[in-house]
Amino acid sequence: MAANSSSTAEQDINPWSVAGARDESGNIAQIDYVSLAQKWNTQLIGQDLLDRFEKVTGHKPHRWLRRGLFFSHRDFDKILTKKEKGEPFFLYTGRGPSTGSLHLGHTIPLSFTKWLQDVLDVPLVFMLTDDEKALFKDSLTFEETMQYAMDNAKDIIALGFDVKKTFIYSDLKYVSSHFLMNAWEFGKLVTFNQVRGAFGFNESTNIGRLFFPSVQCVAAFATSYPELWAEEPQKNRSQPIADIACLIPMGIDQDPYFRLLRENSHRMRFPSPKPALIHSKFLTALQGPGGKMSSSEPNSAIFMTDTAKQIKTKINKYAFSGGQVTIEDHRRLGGNPDVDVAYTYLTYFEEDDAKLAEIYTKYKSGELLTGELKAMAIKALQDNVQEFQEKRKLVTDEVLEQFMTPRRLYFAEKTLPIR
Amino acid sequence: MAANSSSTAEQDINPWSVAGARDESGNIAQIDYVSLAQKWNTQLIGQDLLDRFEKVTGHKPHRWLRRGLFFSHRDFDKILTKKEKGEPFFLYTGRGPSTGSLHLGHTIPLSFTKWLQDVLDVPLVFMLTDDEKALFKDSLTFEETMQYAMDNAKDIIALGFDVKKTFIYSDLKYVSSHFLMNAWEFGKLVTFNQVRGAFGFNESTNIGRLFFPSVQCVAAFATSYPELWAEEPQKNRSQPIADIACLIPMGIDQDPYFRLLRENSHRMRFPSPKPALIHSKFLTALQGPGGKMSSSEPNSAIFMTDTAKQIKTKINKYAFSGGQVTIEDHRRLGGNPDVDVAYTYLTYFEEDDAKLAEIYTKYKSGELLTGELKAMAIKALQDNVQEFQEKRKLVTDEVLEQFMTPRRLYFAEKTLPIR
Repeated sequence: MAANSSSTAEQDINPWSVAGARDESGNIAQIDYVSLAQKWNTQLIGQDLLDRFEKVTGHKPHRWLRRGLFFSHRDFDKILTKKEKGEPFFLYTGRGPSTGSLHLGHTIPLSFTKWLQDVLDVPLVFMLTDDEKALFKDSLTFEETMQYAMDNAKDIIALGFDVKKTFIYSDLKYVSSHFLMNAWEFGKLVTFNQVRGAFGFNESTNIGRLFFPSVQCVAAFATSYPELWAEEPQKNRSQPIADIACLIPMGIDQDPYFRLLRENSHRMRFPSPKPALIHSKFLTALQGPGGKMSSSEPNSAIFMTDTAKQIKTKINKYAFSGGQVTIEDHRRLGGNPDVDVAYTYLTYFEEDDAKLAEIYTKYKSGELLTGELKAMAIKALQDNVQEFQEKRKLVTDEVLEQFMTPRRLYFAEKTLPIR
Repeated sequence: MAANSSSTAEQDINPWSVAGARDESGNIAQIDYVSLAQKWNTQLIGQDLLDRFEKVTGHKPHRWLRRGLFFSHRDFDKILTKKEKGEPFFLYTGRGPSTGSLHLGHTIPLSFTKWLQDVLDVPLVFMLTDDEKALFKDSLTFEETMQYAMDNAKDIIALGFDVKKTFIYSDLKYVSSHFLMNAWEFGKLVTFNQVRGAFGFNESTNIGRLFFPSVQCVAAFATSYPELWAEEPQKNRSQPIADIACLIPMGIDQDPYFRLLRENSHRMRFPSPKPALIHSKFLTALQGPGGKMSSSEPNSAIFMTDTAKQIKTKINKYAFSGGQVTIEDHRRLGGNPDVDVAYTYLTYFEEDDAKLAEIYTKYKSGELLTGELKAMAIKALQDNVQEFQEKRKLVTDEVLEQFMTPRRLYFAEKTLPIR
């Protein structure tokens, strides 16, 4: 994001960086998610799908679905059909571990996944891509990123996942023959040309990076790991549970990996159905549109270790405001909630749609001042972070070990078919 | 080897196929090892080096060294210096597993490695590249090649390796964090351009093949695996035994892998010295020069499961002869031992140099007939194969398990420094 540059640029979204479009003056625009969905040929989530979700699950769609934070999908409707028919499926998601604690932007897709786990009542395979992190960052060693994975896993567990239904693993630490064989088998199906097309790799890209997509894709074949799924312990991947689909909640930037997966999953020796995907937008950085919260820019993010006071200071000092410069102007002209970071954060945590609509209207009319809006956002964030910190204290080494031990996962459908 | 083609071709040696040069009539020439050594810039093994070997080790060089079957090297002299100084080093070799039993062409470099293990008194890490085999052969699955690896391992053990000093592993079955981390770290140092240059890969090559060289190279860093080398069990690759060199005996076709290794080993986080290499020629196929024994062409090879009768039949029926068509012509014109397969095989197994020279002279003069020469070769092969078969019977599942269990390997230098 070279704000000083005078050249324009289109928005650039890939698994390793996110930047909004730039105009001639170097201004960064908001991410245009609709054009991204068109470009990548994903389906936007509309009211029809949300209505169907409620009908099938009996649960009101999560506020992040209602408000379009999860805005796009591939074959999510097919997963609902499976749920309707009582057919088994599972969730797969992951995270590239970072040093220190998670920030709010990390927790949103993960909390959403936890909610899906509860509402859909299905197992979850959670991949910590410590290998990817070190491959794509020259200064990091694999030992360091594996340690980050262990630390991050405790934060992830604190978000409330159900241990009976959740296996969390580090790519570097959890090594099994089945895992490796699936990664190789998938890697045998995918050429340099394909990963160049999907990720923008080139001839100078290292072979670790070139191969890594195999590893990221491979958890979608987790039903072929006897240690997790088989009825009886098996020596080989001889008889995976057939036709078990997979739903992957993710940030939209990860879509290139899973396009590759969807294009090739039927070519595996034990073909698996195309995994379904559900895509989130990025949690806006404190500085406003055009980027995402980043661990490497501390003032861009609220961290889950921040104190109430730090949160207050960050929002008051750094949160980009859609309000006017003076109170008089604000009362007269009104604020712009659509670009206001405090308002955006409120949309993530205020459950009550009517209350949120009222805040929107009052801020737009100038009745609600920036300071008042920020105070509401601060309270919401402080509550969320404090609740997290309390849960986090309970995540001991023993709890971590439980989540990270390969073991047969619980399938509700096996014991209680859903009509 | 399209013998019907009328176009000429240079000899083509790579890790996956070997073909001699072809002239306009489609005739395949013998492999030109001297020009190969020049092209790849390896050092030919001369009498000086052999003399030094004898002086340092106190052992007469193996007949396969004396007769130039092991003909080329990189830094083998530096290994002799280490031996002289009593500095530790280890052997690394491997094999791409194949279905069924080993053939004679497989056993020669392995028997030579066993002899080096005895004479140099050093540990050996033995890699079974079952992953490579399935990556480079579309019709094979990883389950199949892993099974081949287990079967081949028993044959390998029957060649006489010392269990105290030998760890044999399958890439697919032996999975450890340290192993993976080294493979990723090495893969991070090597680009697509580099593997394209080394192996002739292109943009349509699959990403499994592109990454595999990392895995093949990684055993050279085995001193950083605490399960094999550390004084005390360690959790991380934090303190490998420094400056332990590695000597890799191999077929010359594998040199591209280890060139890559030598170009990059010093760039690892725990830099390792450039591994030393010692290269063998290929054991000539029964049909004669221009190819090598191949498991997929049963009549090209003597298998270690062949009966005495089968060996006799194969040599009599298929072994390319340098003799004349009639006895009269043979007596008058003499035979050509240099292209005679029976004679070539005798050079592999007849220990007595004087006796071999006599056979050479008598065959060339016509005094020794083709049938007589073949009978000698048959006897030598039958003895060798029978001895193998007797040892092979002793390799039980328990013995296999012993060799394949990661454990601390024995270093003579630790207990008994050599002057």
